[in-house]
Amino acid sequence: MTVHAPPAAKELIEEIVTGNHILFQQRVVDAFGHLSVRHDKDPTKYIMARHLAPGLVTAEDLVTFDLDSNPVGDTSQRYYSERFIHGEIYKARPDVVAVVHCHAPELIPFGVTKAGLRPIYHMSGFLGAGVARFEIRDAGGMTDMLVRTPALGKALALSLGDKPVVLMRGHGATMVGTTIRQVVYRSIYAARNAGLQMEALRLGDVTYLESEEAAKAAATNDKAMERAWGLWEREARDAR
Amino acid sequence: MTVHAPPAAKELIEEIVTGNHILFQQRVVDAFGHLSVRHDKDPTKYIMARHLAPGLVTAEDLVTFDLDSNPVGDTSQRYYSERFIHGEIYKARPDVVAVVHCHAPELIPFGVTKAGLRPIYHMSGFLGAGVARFEIRDAGGMTDMLVRTPALGKALALSLGDKPVVLMRGHGATMVGTTIRQVVYRSIYAARNAGLQMEALRLGDVTYLESEEAAKAAATNDKAMERAWGLWEREARDAR
Amino acid sequence: MTVHAPPAAKELIEEIVTGNHILFQQRVVDAFGHLSVRHDKDPTKYIMARHLAPGLVTAEDLVTFDLDSNPVGDTSQRYYSERFIHGEIYKARPDVVAVVHCHAPELIPFGVTKAGLRPIYHMSGFLGAGVARFEIRDAGGMTDMLVRTPALGKALALSLGDKPVVLMRGHGATMVGTTIRQVVYRSIYAARNAGLQMEALRLGDVTYLESEEAAKAAATNDKAMERAWGLWEREARDAR
Amino acid sequence: MTVHAPPAAKELIEEIVTGNHILFQQRVVDAFGHLSVRHDKDPTKYIMARHLAPGLVTAEDLVTFDLDSNPVGDTSQRYYSERFIHGEIYKARPDVVAVVHCHAPELIPFGVTKAGLRPIYHMSGFLGAGVARFEIRDAGGMTDMLVRTPALGKALALSLGDKPVVLMRGHGATMVGTTIRQVVYRSIYAARNAGLQMEALRLGDVTYLESEEAAKAAATNDKAMERAWGLWEREARDAR
Repeated sequence: MTVHAPPAAKELIEEIVTGNHILFQQRVVDAFGHLSVRHDKDPTKYIMARHLAPGLVTAEDLVTFDLDSNPVGDTSQRYYSERFIHGEIYKARPDVVAVVHCHAPELIPFGVTKAGLRPIYHMSGFLGAGVARFEIRDAGGMTDMLVRTPALGKALALSLGDKPVVLMRGHGATMVGTTIRQVVYRSIYAARNAGLQMEALRLGDVTYLESEEAAKAAATNDKAMERAWGLWEREARDAR
Repeated sequence: MTVHAPPAAKELIEEIVTGNHILFQQRVVDAFGHLSVRHDKDPTKYIMARHLAPGLVTAEDLVTFDLDSNPVGDTSQRYYSERFIHGEIYKARPDVVAVVHCHAPELIPFGVTKAGLRPIYHMSGFLGAGVARFEIRDAGGMTDMLVRTPALGKALALSLGDKPVVLMRGHGATMVGTTIRQVVYRSIYAARNAGLQMEALRLGDVTYLESEEAAKAAATNDKAMERAWGLWEREARDAR
Repeated sequence: MTVHAPPAAKELIEEIVTGNHILFQQRVVDAFGHLSVRHDKDPTKYIMARHLAPGLVTAEDLVTFDLDSNPVGDTSQRYYSERFIHGEIYKARPDVVAVVHCHAPELIPFGVTKAGLRPIYHMSGFLGAGVARFEIRDAGGMTDMLVRTPALGKALALSLGDKPVVLMRGHGATMVGTTIRQVVYRSIYAARNAGLQMEALRLGDVTYLESEEAAKAAATNDKAMERAWGLWEREARDAR
Repeated sequence: MTVHAPPAAKELIEEIVTGNHILFQQRVVDAFGHLSVRHDKDPTKYIMARHLAPGLVTAEDLVTFDLDSNPVGDTSQRYYSERFIHGEIYKARPDVVAVVHCHAPELIPFGVTKAGLRPIYHMSGFLGAGVARFEIRDAGGMTDMLVRTPALGKALALSLGDKPVVLMRGHGATMVGTTIRQVVYRSIYAARNAGLQMEALRLGDVTYLESEEAAKAAATNDKAMERAWGLWEREARDAR
């Protein structure tokens, strides 16, 4: 059965393309990793690029998927094998509007050790809500590490719970947000926080943000996001 | 009441724009952070950009503020919520002509640990005068970490005391100088010193500059600043 | 006796040129290091650039060598003194179609210490097959560290055994693959894995990929390689 | 008395300009640091830029100095206050033809700690001849750290002895060579070796090159230098 979906707003299309380019230019993703957004006209659909490096994505490469991660309409292309990360999170988390999956280098060491990722400064206050962990062995035994089935996607969504970020052991991380701008911001600052925290840990005991400080800083940042987006957009455009 | 201010010298306007671009290109600031200068015709005013990423600032974006950090004249724009950092320091420190507030990555680890930032080489001799620390909890309890009120700005200025730099726990740092060139230089080399000191600490006991060496080196650097500024200016221009 | 070789496929020539540029742009090689491919029409020959920095290689700089690493036809140019790395590996490993020799910075520390290079994430699953070590003192005593004779090349090939990578103490590393794309991928991700592993080791005990996970991830990556190659190709082209 | 000097060969002039740009582009120098060469027609003179950031140097900025570091002919410009580093080394070391003074970041930690800089791989075999140390307090007590007098220059030359590199505590390093290409190569690889050695030391006991290996590798590198120079030259040109 062919499913149809209404066209997404032109602004949303532009924002997801820009978001892909920003994530690449800010070194959150390289050839791998993906950004999706829940469809603005139909919450049971989401939009994401076809199987393509984020830095190369254009509006023509965007595909609409249902929440089982089946492409809507044309199915002749190759898609990200891990698209179930997105679909299953949208199912489990009605509050989530945008999802990033990445292998940001600074986050990998936190995923493979017991070190907890915690907010070292106000820019990453959102980490104060807690960072979840996903061990694919618990859900799938010996795999190729990829979340390539609905069941693995569901297990990941379960591990994520109500948190903004989940670290995936031996793989990377997935972040969620209520807008594309927010999830892009969270991806960039989760990685930066990780890099800074590693440095600080070598200098001695670290004073992290208290929960209340973190929550307040996160609320403030949500209102200042446009300033960062504007700069990142220009940087991504200049780099092309 | 609308307050008026005489126009600042054209050279000063150009210097603050260039300073913003240099701070961005040298990675001292990203989308966030700001540079201000005391008004050359009226010491009870200072000049700073409106709410904008430093890398994007032009002469048209500059605004004059009084020392209570109220914009002079037109008040229809959005301003940096932390402008009180600048106003309160200008009040408390008549010797200060320029201020930078930043989240330079290398400085964050020193702000959240007990490790002292000390001059590791002659380029950062100014650190020999001492580096102050600001714990916002002491002044404001559980905040969003931002210096968004006159009272918090005053507390920060008090923590700064007569030092050239104050590290702000879980946030960043603020530097002061007697010229735009000097405060830009201090911002860049405070960050570089932090990075080098972290590396050196891992190799064993570090021999820092003695106070006298540091003071003499700082005096020398103040006379060689033009060489660095000329290069940074070109680098910032080339990067645009 | 002048040996002749049939011309290689145009696509292969283009791929080896692009591969050289990618290795340079991704910082696996600098002025030094080389990439070779077994001749597609004659398995007793291989193709590699003349004595030239990889970033500067063009189709005109490619030379055909026999497996004793003698140039076929024209011998008036200067060649890499370490070409025996390539020839001797092609002799010992009929399965190998492409070879990279490099001094990637992240790999050097693993070559001069006892730290084992292991797969920290799925991207470098191929490391799960094991990483060999080469101590040139065992084969050649006190040398200039270069694999500049057939005997040293043979010793290196012996150390490599059936592994995908061999770390060369005080020198660099050599990687092999069944395609140019695969060996370029392995070179890039061996280096990235090394950098990430160093960071992770400082955070505490590291959970590496299990052999089965690594083997499965490697098989998956071999099918996703085109996505990375396409991006790297564009990045290398843009950087020129 | 005005001293005259014959014009240097056009090739030498071009090489010193290119060397300045390479040192900047490879991050060995920033706004500070300098490169000099002994005059090819008169060994009692040397050539160096006037007081200018190396990245900005052109042929017009080159000045001839006698070995007391007095400019020959025109003396109306500002010169590097540390030119005595160069003059005094040329006096003490008739074998030296080119000198670099720099603050390369990777070298600073080795200068302020007891960690010995040793050759970790063949590229920096020249370090096997030993790395000297200079403590300016021994020669000048409490200074501004700069080698700004003939006496301090002489003390530095004495510390250098017959070595290729001297680390200057709290300041930087000075390298010497028998050609511009060699001293530029040594500057770049001394810095890279320092960075790699710091990483390796964190992984455990390091196997350094033996003296004989280092000496042989250094002799080999001296013959392969042209390959690196050609690449660096292109990179420096492209970056302008």
